[in-house]
Amino acid sequence: MPPRARAPYRIAINVAGDIGPGAEARVAALDHGFLYGDSVYETVRTYRGAFFLLDRHLDRLQRSLDRVFIALPLDRRDLVAEVHRTVRAYRSLHSTEEDVAVRIVVSRGAGPIGLDFALCERSTYLIYVFELPRLPASLYASGVPVVISKVRRNHPRALDPGIKSGNFLNNILAYKDAKDAGAHEAITCAAEGYLAEGTTSNVFVVKEGLVWTPHAFGILDGITRAVVFEEGRAAGIPIGETNIPPEALFSADEAFITSSLKAVLGISHVNGRPVGAGRPGPITRRLHDLYMARVGRECAGPRAAEPARAAPAGS
Amino acid sequence: MPPRARAPYRIAINVAGDIGPGAEARVAALDHGFLYGDSVYETVRTYRGAFFLLDRHLDRLQRSLDRVFIALPLDRRDLVAEVHRTVRAYRSLHSTEEDVAVRIVVSRGAGPIGLDFALCERSTYLIYVFELPRLPASLYASGVPVVISKVRRNHPRALDPGIKSGNFLNNILAYKDAKDAGAHEAITCAAEGYLAEGTTSNVFVVKEGLVWTPHAFGILDGITRAVVFEEGRAAGIPIGETNIPPEALFSADEAFITSSLKAVLGISHVNGRPVGAGRPGPITRRLHDLYMARVGRECAGPRAAEPARAAPAGS
Repeated sequence: MPPRARAPYRIAINVAGDIGPGAEARVAALDHGFLYGDSVYETVRTYRGAFFLLDRHLDRLQRSLDRVFIALPLDRRDLVAEVHRTVRAYRSLHSTEEDVAVRIVVSRGAGPIGLDFALCERSTYLIYVFELPRLPASLYASGVPVVISKVRRNHPRALDPGIKSGNFLNNILAYKDAKDAGAHEAITCAAEGYLAEGTTSNVFVVKEGLVWTPHAFGILDGITRAVVFEEGRAAGIPIGETNIPPEALFSADEAFITSSLKAVLGISHVNGRPVGAGRPGPITRRLHDLYMARVGRECAGPRAAEPARAAPAGS
Repeated sequence: MPPRARAPYRIAINVAGDIGPGAEARVAALDHGFLYGDSVYETVRTYRGAFFLLDRHLDRLQRSLDRVFIALPLDRRDLVAEVHRTVRAYRSLHSTEEDVAVRIVVSRGAGPIGLDFALCERSTYLIYVFELPRLPASLYASGVPVVISKVRRNHPRALDPGIKSGNFLNNILAYKDAKDAGAHEAITCAAEGYLAEGTTSNVFVVKEGLVWTPHAFGILDGITRAVVFEEGRAAGIPIGETNIPPEALFSADEAFITSSLKAVLGISHVNGRPVGAGRPGPITRRLHDLYMARVGRECAGPRAAEPARAAPAGS
């Protein structure tokens, strides 16, 4: 058991409007989210109390919902209000003002056993507000080791990784390759063999001043990935999408992963071999700084965490 | 909403030892079975009150558990006792002696959010005892229409369909193709294009007296499928495994699907076109009869549903 599993885990969970400590929160055993992983989700975080790009995450949540034919069980504006209410409950429950991670899950809901959507009359939602994973600041200076997993990423014609769903065994089995090797993350390849993505991150390589990342087909179209494109290009850093063979990671000058919880995190080693100088290079550091500057502009302070109020209907 | 969703649904659920009506059964919102579909399961049924091949299903459950690194949270003998106890509770709760379907789920258990197995200290189990899906006997005479789904089966190097897991969105999205076409089942192909399996069944084709089914790689190694091999071969019917292009379903003399809940069920149409004479042919009917004869031999009566008692330890 790692220390985290035993440490008090700070969490508050909102189950369709009822908020309580994590250990007490329950869902129906007949919820198809439990029977089949039939749910979609988003993970967002706060910086200085304010959500970063919550709207974009909710846009993507809606796209995932549409692709698995689940209806959002409440208005988006009400969902946002519930998110903020759950964050306030978390702060009160754990007597803290620290920043948080939030997982928003929308599940098919409860119904008789069977694959027909119509068996479930109503979808349900859960909001998990939990402590941010502890990533020492030193990791951003040293970079992290990753492995290339022997597990291939789900095929987009089978279950498109662009749908952020509760079917995560593919990622869990890939992550085991990282754990077994003492690495931070596992990078999967697509069935065809090109790099796809990490288990909870996108991957980038830098070679001769150019930044490359896999095409956004067969992977999650990451929001941090998109911000890296926006901020990098605005700063004159050339970034593009292409098919990247896994060997390219070994010969890259730099490489990094991105995720909403980890921002831009340099890769130090791949399968035990150093990438470039074995620590985050100048372009990785620059993109990290650009990303955090964007965060700083959008998350000015705690008030930004509150929903917009008194907006006229239809505005 | 189809009528089934509104009809009283007869079910009893055992959640790690606590048995109750289905609507009241709950699991932890932090169970990784809910967060990630991180669970495995088996479905078995009774005939005349006796389980058919329960041991084989439990063997396969153990193989699935091993492949996703989940430990069974109780002794297998105790699990069997809990299955029987739940069946008795179902019969009492619903005042019925009818045959039942049983879904046995073993889930990773509850733990902090994250992909590391070690976050979950202990796996958990649930036993769902529920009414058998209503399949009119006439379906076995008429056969059922199926469609070839546009959804490909999960790639075995991504998430092997041989693992009977709670990651079922691939099947659910494929099943939608059947529902949309008014068909009974959707048959998926592997990424390479050959026939794989139905969403909850294996598929067979008959051509010129030979029975063929896809290789047991990249599909669930069905127990009904295995019994069809055993009984068919013993009766002198030639059955083999091969790569089957989907076109072969259209030109087959006969075709059928198999599953523990459906036994041997003839296919009448594929994508709206009749298979052979458009109803189950002689070999399909013969294999169905052979299967039911095997059921009759193994499930002699209600007493067979009770677990063996007083077996010496280690026997």
